[in-house]
Amino acid sequence: MSDDPTTVPVLDGGFLALDGAFASDLAVVNAARVSFNSTSSAMEERDEGLIRYLMRDRHGSPFEHGYFRFLVKAPIFVVREHHRHRAGHSYNEWSGRYSRIEAEFYVPDYVRTQVGKPGAYTFESVAPDVRESARAEIAGQAESAFAAYERMLEQGVAKEVARTVLPLSMFTKYFWSCNPRSLMHFCSLRNSEHAQFEIRQYAEAAEAFLAQLMPSTHAAFLANGRSAP
Amino acid sequence: MSDDPTTVPVLDGGFLALDGAFASDLAVVNAARVSFNSTSSAMEERDEGLIRYLMRDRHGSPFEHGYFRFLVKAPIFVVREHHRHRAGHSYNEWSGRYSRIEAEFYVPDYVRTQVGKPGAYTFESVAPDVRESARAEIAGQAESAFAAYERMLEQGVAKEVARTVLPLSMFTKYFWSCNPRSLMHFCSLRNSEHAQFEIRQYAEAAEAFLAQLMPSTHAAFLANGRSAP
Amino acid sequence: MSDDPTTVPVLDGGFLALDGAFASDLAVVNAARVSFNSTSSAMEERDEGLIRYLMRDRHGSPFEHGYFRFLVKAPIFVVREHHRHRAGHSYNEWSGRYSRIEAEFYVPDYVRTQVGKPGAYTFESVAPDVRESARAEIAGQAESAFAAYERMLEQGVAKEVARTVLPLSMFTKYFWSCNPRSLMHFCSLRNSEHAQFEIRQYAEAAEAFLAQLMPSTHAAFLANGRSAP
Amino acid sequence: MSDDPTTVPVLDGGFLALDGAFASDLAVVNAARVSFNSTSSAMEERDEGLIRYLMRDRHGSPFEHGYFRFLVKAPIFVVREHHRHRAGHSYNEWSGRYSRIEAEFYVPDYVRTQVGKPGAYTFESVAPDVRESARAEIAGQAESAFAAYERMLEQGVAKEVARTVLPLSMFTKYFWSCNPRSLMHFCSLRNSEHAQFEIRQYAEAAEAFLAQLMPSTHAAFLANGRSAP
Repeated sequence: MSDDPTTVPVLDGGFLALDGAFASDLAVVNAARVSFNSTSSAMEERDEGLIRYLMRDRHGSPFEHGYFRFLVKAPIFVVREHHRHRAGHSYNEWSGRYSRIEAEFYVPDYVRTQVGKPGAYTFESVAPDVRESARAEIAGQAESAFAAYERMLEQGVAKEVARTVLPLSMFTKYFWSCNPRSLMHFCSLRNSEHAQFEIRQYAEAAEAFLAQLMPSTHAAFLANGRSAP
Repeated sequence: MSDDPTTVPVLDGGFLALDGAFASDLAVVNAARVSFNSTSSAMEERDEGLIRYLMRDRHGSPFEHGYFRFLVKAPIFVVREHHRHRAGHSYNEWSGRYSRIEAEFYVPDYVRTQVGKPGAYTFESVAPDVRESARAEIAGQAESAFAAYERMLEQGVAKEVARTVLPLSMFTKYFWSCNPRSLMHFCSLRNSEHAQFEIRQYAEAAEAFLAQLMPSTHAAFLANGRSAP
Repeated sequence: MSDDPTTVPVLDGGFLALDGAFASDLAVVNAARVSFNSTSSAMEERDEGLIRYLMRDRHGSPFEHGYFRFLVKAPIFVVREHHRHRAGHSYNEWSGRYSRIEAEFYVPDYVRTQVGKPGAYTFESVAPDVRESARAEIAGQAESAFAAYERMLEQGVAKEVARTVLPLSMFTKYFWSCNPRSLMHFCSLRNSEHAQFEIRQYAEAAEAFLAQLMPSTHAAFLANGRSAP
Repeated sequence: MSDDPTTVPVLDGGFLALDGAFASDLAVVNAARVSFNSTSSAMEERDEGLIRYLMRDRHGSPFEHGYFRFLVKAPIFVVREHHRHRAGHSYNEWSGRYSRIEAEFYVPDYVRTQVGKPGAYTFESVAPDVRESARAEIAGQAESAFAAYERMLEQGVAKEVARTVLPLSMFTKYFWSCNPRSLMHFCSLRNSEHAQFEIRQYAEAAEAFLAQLMPSTHAAFLANGRSAP
């Protein structure tokens, strides 16, 4: 929804924007080679092999010497999963205590049902009529909650109290900083068929920036079955 | 709401329970004294002074050699603030993806309004009629959202989709582990007049366990203006 | 070197002592089951399978809800490798700035040579005469360095300056706290054929306490090829 | 010792080089303002006040959205103090297991004695003759240890064994990554009169880069008595 090439629309109404980065495959290589007292100013051919080796044998620390900063707009139920990730991750988020919430809510395009046994669920789209009624429920609850929120504010109720009626589908915004290693941990768990569809869209978008800025690292990550070091 | 003496009711419907702990003032003292190659098996009188000194001069690492584990039941808007705390904190929470949510929601007893200028807000109770109407709004939205949630489940919509209508007032449950230093960081920010009323109740309950198990550490924390080392 | 059953001699002159712990398989199970809002007060048979599943699929957070505290005496070259481990680890160590160092140094029983190509080294014992001469070199340097240290102290040189002559073979002592997950990370890297012989002895000793206090977790760790979640 | 303007000589033989950075005052401001859903593309005048407020009230998370990467050459006794700093810090160091150590050792120019009572020590230069004899001791032990190291290598002893004779005065090299908040924590403890002279030189050099890249943050840090948020 932006001309900025670093902003990627995610879901209906959200986005993930690369606010800045300082990340390269060379920094991984140098952090590994410093253990032999040997660093260089450019990648060499054999360095791809070194990166694959570090990834495979789970030598994780060389992947910490880089930086990504994202600005993310996502529904709260996604944010709650995202902010589970602690080591190497930093967050600052829009606060409903200090500022008025805006009426933006996520209504899923992909309404699904769970099939299979516990522990081995898969998902399938629901029938069109169920989809329409679910979308109407979700949109309706959001509108009704937001109207209640506004009525309470008009009566002078503090924002921090009034916001408690708002649903998990509400959009919020936050800065997210991480290093390449913590980004890969996030992607290994969230850009996965076991992750919820919605957070996976954000993880895919973030992983694309990893692939762009650190192509050898990303190739090794894929070759390693997306298992983070 | 429990006969278990380690479970403390918090808010209307929530609790904070000490699920276990391994924490003592002696461990702080020994971690400090090991720098002089001198540890002991019991606190001595001068050790209170040592703890006060460590706290005041922000020597934080000796306060990391202990452990608290809590089981917490709190509304989601509280949990979101709690889980901001990352370094030295571990969490595992009830998931609305895997299990059906129960119809428990927080309706505030203390409905307040914000007075004063930005940056220097204080809170005051609203008038009784506003309070009743706000409580009715909050309870009404919760009921309506839960009914929508159940209707969607009946139609076969996946739990992870249906839950997105549920409000931030919904109760959830989680295990929380931390060390004494990270517990003090939590208390310094959340058992504070700047914190939201609701999370402060949890922080007070947690701080009482710190006071009980590590009385000298807690006294030094208070003497230090509740500034964590 | 101690009658205390929780102190394990390691190397010639060192030890690893369990100073205290609060750790159980049940805490892992409960931290996982809370996601289904279902916790219990005792392990059930199926819970071993749950632990194996968590380990295999790298669901690491349930393994953070426990605590181990060790007192360790080790040579500095071992400590430097140990203290690389950061996330979930806390340390406090004897300081040569504040107190006089004692004349205790590690002289290896197992003197080895490196065989094979870079990246695929193995080690073999050296010939007896080389062993004796290496041990004499190491012991001799330690004595000579300690004598220089003492001469400087006698002349009034500050301890923090004089200590800089002391060798990496010098023994030091420290408290080490960690959670079960961070302990397994340490063991996966250090109780390994790729680790240096000396640190491996400490990692083996620490892993034995994990096996004792969390037998199902340890069994799953082994079944997982000692790959930490 | 380098024409590279980002390499700062530290001590006799060491250095601290800024290998790269992605850090600005604006990122602090935006991370704070996102809580009001208000970010901007340039600093405004009032933003300095915001940074001072965040520093003073210890709102630390907005200072995590930046990145510094240094290459450091320092004696081992300095590195051991440095690597105590864990949260928000990443390190990769030259390894004496894999590569031959070079004969570079730190011999202090400033040889001092400790005066005053425990807990309130200060330092004073020793007399010229004591200084010369201490420098000769330190240099002599280093030479003797290095000769023993080389003799053992010649006899085929593994590098990881032979290196244990080397003293704490030996120079090593490492990459160090941190965020502005963790950098300030390091500087608050190590660019301090309580820190050892040698590590303080490194902390001063690192703090100069903070001042250069984040002038408003650094000014607020100073105004706060160098107490990190």
